[in-house]
Amino acid sequence: MPNLHLHHLENSRSFRTLWLLEELGLEYQLTQYDRKNGLAPDSLEQAHPMGKAPVLEITFDDNSQSDLTLIESGHIINYLLAKYDPDYQLHPKVDADSETWRDYDFWMQFAEASAMPPLVMRLVFSKVVERSPKLVRPITKHVRKQVETSMIGKNINKVLSLIERHLSENQWFAGSEFSGADIQMAFVVEAANARSGKGGGLDQNKYVNTLNFLNRCQARPAYQKAVEVGGKLDF
Amino acid sequence: MPNLHLHHLENSRSFRTLWLLEELGLEYQLTQYDRKNGLAPDSLEQAHPMGKAPVLEITFDDNSQSDLTLIESGHIINYLLAKYDPDYQLHPKVDADSETWRDYDFWMQFAEASAMPPLVMRLVFSKVVERSPKLVRPITKHVRKQVETSMIGKNINKVLSLIERHLSENQWFAGSEFSGADIQMAFVVEAANARSGKGGGLDQNKYVNTLNFLNRCQARPAYQKAVEVGGKLDF
Repeated sequence: MPNLHLHHLENSRSFRTLWLLEELGLEYQLTQYDRKNGLAPDSLEQAHPMGKAPVLEITFDDNSQSDLTLIESGHIINYLLAKYDPDYQLHPKVDADSETWRDYDFWMQFAEASAMPPLVMRLVFSKVVERSPKLVRPITKHVRKQVETSMIGKNINKVLSLIERHLSENQWFAGSEFSGADIQMAFVVEAANARSGKGGGLDQNKYVNTLNFLNRCQARPAYQKAVEVGGKLDF
Repeated sequence: MPNLHLHHLENSRSFRTLWLLEELGLEYQLTQYDRKNGLAPDSLEQAHPMGKAPVLEITFDDNSQSDLTLIESGHIINYLLAKYDPDYQLHPKVDADSETWRDYDFWMQFAEASAMPPLVMRLVFSKVVERSPKLVRPITKHVRKQVETSMIGKNINKVLSLIERHLSENQWFAGSEFSGADIQMAFVVEAANARSGKGGGLDQNKYVNTLNFLNRCQARPAYQKAVEVGGKLDF
């Protein structure tokens, strides 16, 4: 068996990797990092020059392959499932004519390409307000409000509506079975839940299927083990 | 043959779809949209509630399948190649042990998950400055500078370094053969080129392999046909 070494940053996308490693029942070594002023510490750059988590290092004892250093949480999900899920328990086989595969592939992309950017931008603008000197804060607040109204808020609402509609018709993101796409998307739902409704979370009436999905994820033993090992997501 | 109908927005990610349709030699119907104040027009929401381009509608004349409405440019690349590239000319077969597949899958994710967000954020902050009243512009400029220094600029530099290093060792993003990952990443390189060096583009000495890659893309007949049909990318 190859050795897997995960570089895990608290409250970050590396939670996805941790959770999937637990779902697959794989053994791994863990290095834990704390955030500094909300950002990844510089020490993560020693694991990979991008300086972000997750970083997954893989070494092959039998020298059958060169060592790998993988980044990008969505890619790591695809890699781990291609390598360690040969019976397609947690991901579908590529098939353009299968709705399950199309949904799987779509949500794997959508999570970071369309859903996370406005959520991250909301966070950046709230930090800008928070860190601006008192005297100019009315101006930075005004700027934030304008961008929130014209772009960020609109986009987040569209994202959440699409998610809610899909989950009102499907148990999981790729249909009736739990898959890697749920791990990819659960992080989005947790981030949206933390950054909506002025801290009160997503509207329980409007997003009932989305919140039920999150509850089902959090009830999984592998999710709970990941929390135990790497800490609870707390945005 | 199914009917393909692409909703294409000028200067947008739908250029990727257009280019790939040309690479695959597929016939398609095109509806073209112009930007309004830089944003997608509301009319795109009639094609898909997300209101973004690309939207690819697929109808099956023989009723063999339900009609599809696909969004997310990376997913559309994966779909079109799964469906219309059975000989793996433009994408590799899934294989965790193959460097070609790992590279392909990595860059497909990296383009929108890590590379585009800081480029989009740079654009948003420059719009904020541009649209702020003269009296408060020194303040919005100062805010932009702080975010640029502490985060955006750093991230873009890391992204560009990773790209340049990879292309100094590989002809294309997935190794020695042109693939869908190049279509996905070329858009990133064009956006970075437009939003760097105060309008002068990427440093020609520092990013020689990246710029050579872009030239090779632009020299492809399918790229040129896409420009002819849908307009040149002009950020």
